[in-house]
Amino acid sequence: MDTEFGLIEWIRRRAAAREGVPLGIGDDCAALRLAGEALVTTDMLMDGRHFRLGEATPDQVGYKALAVNLSDIAAMAGRPVAAFVAVALPKDNAGAIARGLWEGMRPLAERFGVALAGGDTNAWDGPLVICITVVGEATARGAVRRSGAKPGDALLVTGPLGGSLLGRHLRPRPRVAEALAIHEAVDVHAMIDISDGLAADLGHVLEESGGLGAVIDEGAIPVHEDAVAIARDDGRPPVEHALHDGEDFELLLAVAPDDADRLLAGTPPGCEALRRIGVVSDRPGLRLRSADGAERVIEPRGFDHLAC
Amino acid sequence: MDTEFGLIEWIRRRAAAREGVPLGIGDDCAALRLAGEALVTTDMLMDGRHFRLGEATPDQVGYKALAVNLSDIAAMAGRPVAAFVAVALPKDNAGAIARGLWEGMRPLAERFGVALAGGDTNAWDGPLVICITVVGEATARGAVRRSGAKPGDALLVTGPLGGSLLGRHLRPRPRVAEALAIHEAVDVHAMIDISDGLAADLGHVLEESGGLGAVIDEGAIPVHEDAVAIARDDGRPPVEHALHDGEDFELLLAVAPDDADRLLAGTPPGCEALRRIGVVSDRPGLRLRSADGAERVIEPRGFDHLAC
Repeated sequence: MDTEFGLIEWIRRRAAAREGVPLGIGDDCAALRLAGEALVTTDMLMDGRHFRLGEATPDQVGYKALAVNLSDIAAMAGRPVAAFVAVALPKDNAGAIARGLWEGMRPLAERFGVALAGGDTNAWDGPLVICITVVGEATARGAVRRSGAKPGDALLVTGPLGGSLLGRHLRPRPRVAEALAIHEAVDVHAMIDISDGLAADLGHVLEESGGLGAVIDEGAIPVHEDAVAIARDDGRPPVEHALHDGEDFELLLAVAPDDADRLLAGTPPGCEALRRIGVVSDRPGLRLRSADGAERVIEPRGFDHLAC
Repeated sequence: MDTEFGLIEWIRRRAAAREGVPLGIGDDCAALRLAGEALVTTDMLMDGRHFRLGEATPDQVGYKALAVNLSDIAAMAGRPVAAFVAVALPKDNAGAIARGLWEGMRPLAERFGVALAGGDTNAWDGPLVICITVVGEATARGAVRRSGAKPGDALLVTGPLGGSLLGRHLRPRPRVAEALAIHEAVDVHAMIDISDGLAADLGHVLEESGGLGAVIDEGAIPVHEDAVAIARDDGRPPVEHALHDGEDFELLLAVAPDDADRLLAGTPPGCEALRRIGVVSDRPGLRLRSADGAERVIEPRGFDHLAC
């Protein structure tokens, strides 16, 4: 039988030190030295809601729980520094699940230079719940918000969309390096990571930017092969999946048109899949333009996490 | 029926702005400007484990969940800045519970100048889970760790202990101002908040300080009237409750003996209940000295959150 302190010690021994984290696991708080503004994001994943233990292994859950938070840091063009992991473990198998979560998080933490600097370990009769908070730092260029899109801005995405349910949603690649490279190259007006779906997340950017609209070129949307595969089964057009599926964790960004040209001409490192998909407009609403020039209004289908 | 975005908007409208928090609820991350080192702590509370909905109201749960995190910031002599609240809400009553949690958190957040700057809102078939992360900042005097106790240091506690189960555990008073006042007045070598019980938490300080020991004067321990009340029922001595009950959320600190004299002579604001209870020793182990000078070894009874 694992004990709480035994498990914390097991993790503490494996948690790598990191510059900027003078105090990690083992005190009342962790202490971090941040170069710029602190960026903070938190995400809770629950068994039966965001994953199913049995279909997904604990290390897949650990990976995803950390990755979605890193993706939020990426969406601000920030650098991740430290992660804090709180868990409610099913008591029958608490230790094995905890170690599995850790095994999933570790390679990701190492790759992105994130210290596992604290958390809270509990067991109970209920299903697995994992809540990760990541603290990052803004670069000298500042954090990129959702709210800075301007009429005329070009809209770009960092990779193909749709069909993540086939498995990709469990192993998203946080676009941290891509975001930093893009923000280094040009002034990014607004950015968001695509978790609710391209249409819904673009809707968030437009709303936060003062009630703007956008026109998306249907043929310009990069459609993932998984969206094509799902479309074969359900008969809906692949582009519908690319617009609405969610959990892609690619970035959607708004930049001045000249800067879009610049980004697409001299591709920043890792951004080979960057595509321009449309333009921000001062006319509210989201419109999809087909090859023949016809436009139709599309409604974001936001995922409501309160509706079960 | 509440929607996720409706609920987030409800909270966002009520969340007060705060200097140092340029970006709160509504983006991928919050952004904070911190004056010193970032202090980060996270605590997860689960229905059936840390409270029982029905016995405790949602606003009591919200209060406690925030208070225990503020207490961790206090234990480092830090200033709390922002709170991040992730919840798994029982779907049958998600909106009402969420608003109740908020009503419990709000007065505490206002009193301690903490911005509710982000979170994650979910509903499910399971019991209520709330996970709060608080980010604070160290003062110019630096964060106080658990690990700096020295042989000869005086041990002090900020208030009476024991019997919190009678109800006090639901409404702890985070000793943030007290910790700042004490740390301003003297050099605090080590500090911890008493959550697992005086004996267990003193054990943590002694272990983290390099395997030291301590002698506690039995008669000097401030025993809470609730400990006396519980002792009447269970027949155990009140001091046993003061040593082992936990969830007091008073602070235990180690300072040089002269500084202890100074603190007790010129009481810092709010620290009228401060008491000297013993001394740190280089002889490992925790010993309790009774009025006749006899010493007995006491074993910390740590609460194992993995053992159900």
